[in-house]
Amino acid sequence: MGEAKNAFYAQSGGVTAVINASACGVIQTARQHRDKIANVYAGRNGIIGALTEDLIDTGLEDDASIAALRYTPSGAFGSCRYKLKGLVESKAQYERLIEVFKAHNIGYFFYNGGGDSADTCHKVSQLSDTLGYPVQAIHVPKTVDNDLPVTDNCPGFGSVAKYIAVSTREASYDVQSMALTSTKVFVIEVMGRHAGWIAAAGALAADSENDIPVVILFPEVRFDQQRFLDLVKANVEKYGYCSVVVSEGAKWPDGRFLSEQGTRDAFGHAQLGGAAPIVANMVKQALGYKYHWAVADYLQRAARHIASKTDVEQAYALGKAAVELALQGANAVMPTIVRKSDTPYRWEVGSVELSKVANVEKFMPPEFISKDGFGITDVCRRYLLPLIQGEDYPPYLDGTPRYVRLKNTAVPKKLKTGFKI
Amino acid sequence: MGEAKNAFYAQSGGVTAVINASACGVIQTARQHRDKIANVYAGRNGIIGALTEDLIDTGLEDDASIAALRYTPSGAFGSCRYKLKGLVESKAQYERLIEVFKAHNIGYFFYNGGGDSADTCHKVSQLSDTLGYPVQAIHVPKTVDNDLPVTDNCPGFGSVAKYIAVSTREASYDVQSMALTSTKVFVIEVMGRHAGWIAAAGALAADSENDIPVVILFPEVRFDQQRFLDLVKANVEKYGYCSVVVSEGAKWPDGRFLSEQGTRDAFGHAQLGGAAPIVANMVKQALGYKYHWAVADYLQRAARHIASKTDVEQAYALGKAAVELALQGANAVMPTIVRKSDTPYRWEVGSVELSKVANVEKFMPPEFISKDGFGITDVCRRYLLPLIQGEDYPPYLDGTPRYVRLKNTAVPKKLKTGFKI
Repeated sequence: MGEAKNAFYAQSGGVTAVINASACGVIQTARQHRDKIANVYAGRNGIIGALTEDLIDTGLEDDASIAALRYTPSGAFGSCRYKLKGLVESKAQYERLIEVFKAHNIGYFFYNGGGDSADTCHKVSQLSDTLGYPVQAIHVPKTVDNDLPVTDNCPGFGSVAKYIAVSTREASYDVQSMALTSTKVFVIEVMGRHAGWIAAAGALAADSENDIPVVILFPEVRFDQQRFLDLVKANVEKYGYCSVVVSEGAKWPDGRFLSEQGTRDAFGHAQLGGAAPIVANMVKQALGYKYHWAVADYLQRAARHIASKTDVEQAYALGKAAVELALQGANAVMPTIVRKSDTPYRWEVGSVELSKVANVEKFMPPEFISKDGFGITDVCRRYLLPLIQGEDYPPYLDGTPRYVRLKNTAVPKKLKTGFKI
Repeated sequence: MGEAKNAFYAQSGGVTAVINASACGVIQTARQHRDKIANVYAGRNGIIGALTEDLIDTGLEDDASIAALRYTPSGAFGSCRYKLKGLVESKAQYERLIEVFKAHNIGYFFYNGGGDSADTCHKVSQLSDTLGYPVQAIHVPKTVDNDLPVTDNCPGFGSVAKYIAVSTREASYDVQSMALTSTKVFVIEVMGRHAGWIAAAGALAADSENDIPVVILFPEVRFDQQRFLDLVKANVEKYGYCSVVVSEGAKWPDGRFLSEQGTRDAFGHAQLGGAAPIVANMVKQALGYKYHWAVADYLQRAARHIASKTDVEQAYALGKAAVELALQGANAVMPTIVRKSDTPYRWEVGSVELSKVANVEKFMPPEFISKDGFGITDVCRRYLLPLIQGEDYPPYLDGTPRYVRLKNTAVPKKLKTGFKI
């Protein structure tokens, strides 16, 4: 098999409550195969760390710290929003990657991110052919949005779903208590730029023991203001109150987001936030109900304190599987979650070629959205419920969770050249 | 001692994650003294239930359901925002209370609320003298705002404080991961109309192991925009990012709230919400930093899933103590938390006359706020830390907490007269 090579690992895009659990899976598994993977170098702030030769020596972190990644939210090595384009347009970047990889004897590239990252990872996987540098590129899926194709679900999503389900239920109990003389409509805004998976999780606030009126505004459903207001009114008249879960990606019929802030991120995505107050005011003006609204924003994706145990296990398993795939000689693949059964929930790890993943977004299928467009179907509930199963509490000391801070010591640079981002 | 009387229990004002733990303490303790307290009738939707003779027979709930109140957020019997004024102005209401109390043989009045409710409870305690009906009125303190005097702290606050400390830490980890290319400033808006206790808890996100830059905007501190922006800038330059915790009660120097929605609740309080986007935009315009913002709103006070164990225990203890005080013949009092020691934290239950509680608001003392006005002092940290100690997770089934829904069966009406609210 030849001399052991080093592995490069980077986190990309918005971080999650469990992306570090994938890092934990990658590093712990690599440590069991030192004959093939000498060390794992992490990119400081994602792929930018590779381009600027700012590598973190994870070998200097003790086993306990690496184990603690499993229960630490955020990106322990830093992430970034930085998109590599095609092999022609971004040729300088890819050549630089090879330069850095060569200098540090890197033969494995593990990229932990969403759809954009899968695309980058796919391009890196082609470097052997196109630029003559042998590297195995494996993508580790991560996105709270759950919008990656092929994999049954995506690490990061289950924990956000659990947070939104629990928070919507708790707030609904609260509003119900107050509804006679005070708040009648509660609006919570959740993430999900294009796909309504997170919004759908709000429907899990209700179940056979919790008859809670939850109205959901999906990005996938054309917003009909009058029908929305009619439903809110009917719920308030029947239940005394109504909870509304609005996706940040919900749009007016003309395609504008319910609330755009006008700014855009590095990928050209509109930066959102503020649909909740818009919807709340709409209800107030049309129906006169007193309202409250919340915008969960980063709280939802960082909420490791209420992570789904299933999600943590899957995040870890896919990190582990990525290394195992690499050791088997794979390139240009992504490990996936394959659902074997809903009840009891059984899943296993599969894999898919990156060419089938890159640039494909998975929306809520029509059969997951109720006929009226404001709720979920039973088939959607059967899909979602297993993903929020189980609690996996972090350790606490003195009232707050003890998340790990790594040393993140830099690998000494070997190149004389820098690289401008 | 004569024949056993019934007790009336009602929840008042905004509900909390642990007000039902106080209800649990009241009802379980009353059940141990059936020779003196025949039954506990709860007001449906608070005091309105007493006025409209809409009483809930808690005797019809089994012991397991009452025990489950300990871990169920919100107001299990319904709460209300309905303020009784003075004995003269609101004479009709007080006379109606007596009419209902007489009809249902009620000799004990347990009122579970904040400052306004303490005032009402105080007036009810005077009914023996002023209107010739013997009733013992005991106030059970509850408010997330922690603004009741005399008691060292107030049930409901510790759990919100824990939620805000944990959420601010988690979001700060997230922002730190992303700061190089994305969000540099994260703003979270928290409750606290006049007092900055909840905002102060955001400072607990940082500690000796978590060097997190947290800037707090207190209602008690005159907002100096330039100094605020300077501090945010300094933090971003030093740490790469900055977290801001803004109280909904933070005000411009002219006394206006940073964001008023223009509506007012039944007590005439301004209905707030929206300081976070104002502050975030202010940062963006002055400093150009990319931001995200969250408004926790009801999520924070309903978050039983991350309640403080200390808070749950104290909420229960004060409900229990209220009944014990009543059995000892007390009237016009409120059980309190008395702190005996910070480290190790030791506390006991005391009591105070309601005349010393009603209409007094407890603000953050100046020595709790750091010299620059944007943080807390060590003495404040020593005060806050014990209140968020310990976790007290609710039971989960199928991924979500199993909160109890009571039957809430109405006591048959005995009066022929109604009462218009």
